[in-house]
This record gives sequence, structure tokens and C-alpha cells, in this order.
Amino acid sequence: MFGDMMNYPNGIKRNNQKSSIPNGNRGMSLENDLNLSNQYYRNNNIALIYKKPTPIKATKISYINNCKKINDGFFEMASTTDYNGVYLGYYIDFEAKMTNNLTSFPLSNIHAHQLEHLLAVNNHGGISFLIIRFTKLNLTFLIETNKISDIIKDRKNIPLSLLKERGFIIQEKYEPRLDYLKIVDQIIGGKNEI
Amino acid sequence: MFGDMMNYPNGIKRNNQKSSIPNGNRGMSLENDLNLSNQYYRNNNIALIYKKPTPIKATKISYINNCKKINDGFFEMASTTDYNGVYLGYYIDFEAKMTNNLTSFPLSNIHAHQLEHLLAVNNHGGISFLIIRFTKLNLTFLIETNKISDIIKDRKNIPLSLLKERGFIIQEKYEPRLDYLKIVDQIIGGKNEI
Repeated sequence: MFGDMMNYPNGIKRNNQKSSIPNGNRGMSLENDLNLSNQYYRNNNIALIYKKPTPIKATKISYINNCKKINDGFFEMASTTDYNGVYLGYYIDFEAKMTNNLTSFPLSNIHAHQLEHLLAVNNHGGISFLIIRFTKLNLTFLIETNKISDIIKDRKNIPLSLLKERGFIIQEKYEPRLDYLKIVDQIIGGKNEI
Repeated sequence: MFGDMMNYPNGIKRNNQKSSIPNGNRGMSLENDLNLSNQYYRNNNIALIYKKPTPIKATKISYINNCKKINDGFFEMASTTDYNGVYLGYYIDFEAKMTNNLTSFPLSNIHAHQLEHLLAVNNHGGISFLIIRFTKLNLTFLIETNKISDIIKDRKNIPLSLLKERGFIIQEKYEPRLDYLKIVDQIIGGKNEI
């Protein structure tokens, strides 16, 4: 029932200010980069993509002036992925993770039902992918889940070499911080060519 | 910062069992009906639509055996709507509300930024609507937000007569409980005709 710390790094990161993060720890701010990018996309009327709230089960609640307050609760397992929304009429759904590894990303870092959800999104005509940051290499990849469905089904490691071959490197910019929709444009272009 | 009880009826309803609800209070189970319907759609590979978790801000956290536990927190305002997902490649986004009123639904029951979000979804090529249940009339409507954008912008009341005219009544069935995607089929059919 309880999630371990590693599954919920968001609460820990939320108070970190980008400016106070030394260069070597920039990978810690993947969620922050994505939130800023999504905000940029929204403000510029490009896309509506949001991070979903972390599901929480409140076990003890009190009322102060008709307001509900949580006195006791715990984090639940997310039923889907962290991010979803709409871009150019397409349903977008993805999970974003960081790793300190140097040569592969272990899919054991993502829950089996989340991976199943991502594959199911494709079956329903949506676009689903993983965003994976190798913190020590300072590299962030986007890989479509249908490009690695065999690896996903076995929940194996995704080798860095395979990410370079089948995925895309997301360039870091000033604004938007991680312009991952530029890569989604290529995915959509590829869909329309077929 | 704190939300009032009326905005967060979910926590209160969650423990209600459908079977224990007398007929007159069936309107109380709109969330339950939608969750069951969405589960049916998922299990039958029809659509992937989920209710988003209620956003919560944990203000005091403790760790037990490396597990994060909330000792203190409060409910935050949702940045978007309650339900979204993908159906036949379309991005679906909606808000569901109940009212005890007999002649109109007051849009003041929905936050202004949620209504703006629903209108924005249309601009990005998604399908957005409201599901409104009149508990005392035992009637549940689906109304596309672009059919009432003028009323939405002013956050006025939606008269029941207008819902009957511009919206659709969702039939209650055994399974799925509320087959609202049947109505979405008509909306999609209308889109493709243009």
C-alpha cells in the first residue's frame, strides 16, 4: 500500500529552486523542466498538457471552518502515468524518469501497469512515450512506447545504444526548457506519411 | 488556500456503497457511476478514461521504513477537470456535477479556470463536455462546452430547457452504468460530417 521514497521524488524536489541546483544535479529537475515547458505550451496556446496530482489516500480528516484538512494519509500507487493532455487534436500520454545509470535505463523503475497503460494508449489512437534523463550524461531522450513494445512487455533494461537508435534526444533550451513537442511533431509527421 | 467541503465531495462519497443508497439519493453516486462506466470501457478495450486524483498538498511528512506518510496536509484547487482520456484517437475531457435544483444548473458550481480549460480543449482539437445530474429529477445530461460557450464565459446558470434543447440525456443502464460514449459517438459523427 505504501510507496517507497524512490517512487515519489516529487515532494522532495518541489522545494528545490532551479538556481540553487549545482550543474551536476541538473538531472534532478526533470519534473521542474517539464512543468515549465508545459506551462510555456499552455501560455502560448500550443498544447494543454498537465502533470497529474499524486494520488493520496486521506485516512483521517478534520474540518476547520467548513474546510477539509488531512490529519493522516499516505501516498497511493498511481493508476496511470504522470503526464497527459492534448496537442493538435492528438491525445498525448507519457511518463518521465531519471536514472544515474550510464549505459541503460531499467524499466523496473516504472510500474508494470503504467507500461501497460502506455501501450494501451497507442491502441486507442493516442501518442505515448517515455522521457528518460541520464543525469550523469546530461542527456534526455524521448522514445515512443511502440518502438520498444517488446522490451516493455518483458520490463527489461533499455540500453542507451537503443535509445540513441530508436529514440530522439530532446534539446535543452531557455524556453521551453525541454521542447519535446518538436519531437512529437516528427512522430505526427511520420503518422501522416503512412 | 483551503477548499470548502462542497468542492470536494469525493472523499465523502467514496465510502458510500451503491447498494446502500436509497433510490431518492441515487444522484449522490454520479462519481461512482462514472468510475464504473470508465472501468467497463477500459475492461472492454473501448476507451481509456480516468478520474484524476484530487490534488493534495502535504505539509508534514514522516518516513516509516523508507515509506512516506502524510501527517498533515490539505486539499488544493484542481488545475484542470476531473476526467480525461482517449477514445477512438480523440482527446476527451469533462467535468461532472450534481445539483438539487429543479430548473437550472448554476455554473458557479464549477471553477472559472476549469471552464476556461474545457473551452481551451476544444481549441486544441479535443472533445470537452459537462455531465450534469439533476438528482431530484433523476436526469443526467451531457452537454458539449462549445454549445454553451456564451453561458460558460459569463458563468451563468444553464436552464434545464436549454440542456434539453442543446444537450443529450444519458441513459442509465446496467452496464455501462452511464453510457456517455454513445453520445460522444454522435458528437464525433457530427464532426466528421462537416
